[in-house]
Amino acid sequence: MERTNAKLIKAFAKVLKRRRRAAGLSQEELAFRSELSPSYISLLETANRQPTLTVLAELADRLDVGLPELLAEIIAELNE
Amino acid sequence: MERTNAKLIKAFAKVLKRRRRAAGLSQEELAFRSELSPSYISLLETANRQPTLTVLAELADRLDVGLPELLAEIIAELNE
Repeated sequence: MERTNAKLIKAFAKVLKRRRRAAGLSQEELAFRSELSPSYISLLETANRQPTLTVLAELADRLDVGLPELLAEIIAELNE
Repeated sequence: MERTNAKLIKAFAKVLKRRRRAAGLSQEELAFRSELSPSYISLLETANRQPTLTVLAELADRLDVGLPELLAEIIAELNE
């Protein structure tokens, strides 16, 4: 059974949506650029799925943010 | 089908093993502390599995390193 840290996954969902919107991308555009499905992006942004290391790196790259910076933002969101 | 960035997953595997040994932990001890199975720790360290966001955070916590720092170390390993 996959381990899920619900609070962490929710924090990630918020940061992903905020970063995507700041980049002016729709879920479809981000999905296309990261070669993920739009439904998967939607599941990530509603905290119904959690990313693997590969997906985290892919999304960070498409959103033009370093992976460590993205994780720092997720931790900051978690601690708000 | 799960996306896999083989180079990134190998870099993570190396950092995990190095950090675990530096902490003086066996795979079994790290598994026990992070409530993961020893076989899963072994699969992670041989790059046969990749971590989710939750597992990354759990391992970072058990290895007493911040999540952003752990990701920075993985990126540094990747770029070596």
